[in-house]
Amino acid sequence: MVDHELTGAFAPVVTPFHADLTPDAPRFLAHCEWLLSHGVGLAPFGTNSEANSLGAGERMALLDHLVEHGLDVRRMLPGTGCCSLPETVALTRHAVARGCAGVLMLPPFFYKGIADDGLYDYYARVIEQVGDTRLRLYLYHIPALSGVPITLPVIERLIRDFPQTVVGIKDSSGDWNNLSAMLDAFPGFGIFPASESLVSRASARGAKGCISATVNINPQLIGRLCREWSSADGAALQAQADAVRTIVQSFPMIPALKAVLASHRDDRAWAQLRPPLSALTSEQHARLHAALAACGFALPG
Amino acid sequence: MVDHELTGAFAPVVTPFHADLTPDAPRFLAHCEWLLSHGVGLAPFGTNSEANSLGAGERMALLDHLVEHGLDVRRMLPGTGCCSLPETVALTRHAVARGCAGVLMLPPFFYKGIADDGLYDYYARVIEQVGDTRLRLYLYHIPALSGVPITLPVIERLIRDFPQTVVGIKDSSGDWNNLSAMLDAFPGFGIFPASESLVSRASARGAKGCISATVNINPQLIGRLCREWSSADGAALQAQADAVRTIVQSFPMIPALKAVLASHRDDRAWAQLRPPLSALTSEQHARLHAALAACGFALPG
Repeated sequence: MVDHELTGAFAPVVTPFHADLTPDAPRFLAHCEWLLSHGVGLAPFGTNSEANSLGAGERMALLDHLVEHGLDVRRMLPGTGCCSLPETVALTRHAVARGCAGVLMLPPFFYKGIADDGLYDYYARVIEQVGDTRLRLYLYHIPALSGVPITLPVIERLIRDFPQTVVGIKDSSGDWNNLSAMLDAFPGFGIFPASESLVSRASARGAKGCISATVNINPQLIGRLCREWSSADGAALQAQADAVRTIVQSFPMIPALKAVLASHRDDRAWAQLRPPLSALTSEQHARLHAALAACGFALPG
Repeated sequence: MVDHELTGAFAPVVTPFHADLTPDAPRFLAHCEWLLSHGVGLAPFGTNSEANSLGAGERMALLDHLVEHGLDVRRMLPGTGCCSLPETVALTRHAVARGCAGVLMLPPFFYKGIADDGLYDYYARVIEQVGDTRLRLYLYHIPALSGVPITLPVIERLIRDFPQTVVGIKDSSGDWNNLSAMLDAFPGFGIFPASESLVSRASARGAKGCISATVNINPQLIGRLCREWSSADGAALQAQADAVRTIVQSFPMIPALKAVLASHRDDRAWAQLRPPLSALTSEQHARLHAALAACGFALPG
């Protein structure tokens, strides 16, 4: 297994849209710059980015926009996993060509009941077709949405056959037992839980940080938690991060993140979602806002 | 509601691949010609086409190949529903521009727990962005794979707001109660069950035929069943069609269809699937072959 550089907190960057539903590249760039300035990495085109509501061309254009503006590709982990082999290969090649530190790859997620052999073959074919030794691939396990779990035997076989390439995984199962089993089975592997609420517990067992939706609104605190969970302040940082997380995740996550950015930046454009997702109702928005205010939440400057 | 022409049996056309996993356009064309020669229509790029394992460019190239070779676009109902609005719009525009009789459109299928309003908005935006009065849209309800059911209230609203455009649905729920509720709620709507096993029962209630995987291997019989279910031969046709269906659906459907085409045409190339799907094991293949032989199945010439 190679040494890999990615550690700490990563934001699955939310994607702003214009009123006509096209991606808003300037707002996207500004949000990414803001996240980097607060010490966290970028995982654009994740679930919380509405990436699966974007076309391949839109994703590539947004990534190009970041790179052309000089954002640090060593802190970028774009999502490139689509349902189809050729689209996944095209997005992955593009990200590697732009110098991204890694890619985060969903399994193909339409067909269900996929055998381990079929899933292994898919990832192996992607790696072979990308054909670039610079590729650093992070698997993306999110069975509740993909319907296609990435099982431990598949991970083990991919690590064995592509040790320089398959270097980590994001575990969005929300299942501590699964995360724990991976941490046991694959020491040194780049394992990231999908929530800051697991950072202290998982980091003590070797996890590398987290890739979490709420990093989009709470980057300073979650970044610090990922660096200082074992310090004297660790328990307090974990508790503060958990408080915000608990509030936000009691609403539909993507609309909630966008609502917070829209209200705290006084920028209604951030509230736009792309169908099939819908914005929070005004009642939800008011409850979210009040709960965050009550716990002292403020968006960092 | 407009009169629409689509009735009878349609094949979600299986997609042949070369050994390097690229689509095999000549074999695809030949299979489509064979299906049309046996009196059934074409629903390419459906679930059983491995359409969700194809890139948008591959789908358009395959459809162009059929149209350029003069196949009857009035009998074509290509699948065009992707996860993202722009890709769905692009595929739909392409199909309409080629003159296809209709399109069969999956809901966006990554995000789950989608509200009716969000799903309605998605379809409404697609229709508006396609912006072509020639569009005839068939919804595609397949909750076991999409995870996004198309509910009766959404259908009702789409028919009300786009009566010239939203003209039918394929119901792959496998749930008679759902099919029955749709037949009650939307008389005259172009409702197609996803299995020939429901043809007699559903057609008696106003269904227009079926769009069924096994039409790929049993077009003559299922085509005849869709035309003659109410005749003196109807019950016998239904029983014969059911016998084949029961055997094939006891195996993974797409590999099974390809195995039948490969063995009955003595053409191994047909057995190729694109990952993440895998071919039948040789044991499964032998059992399938024996069971079909025992019930007298022969692929029409």
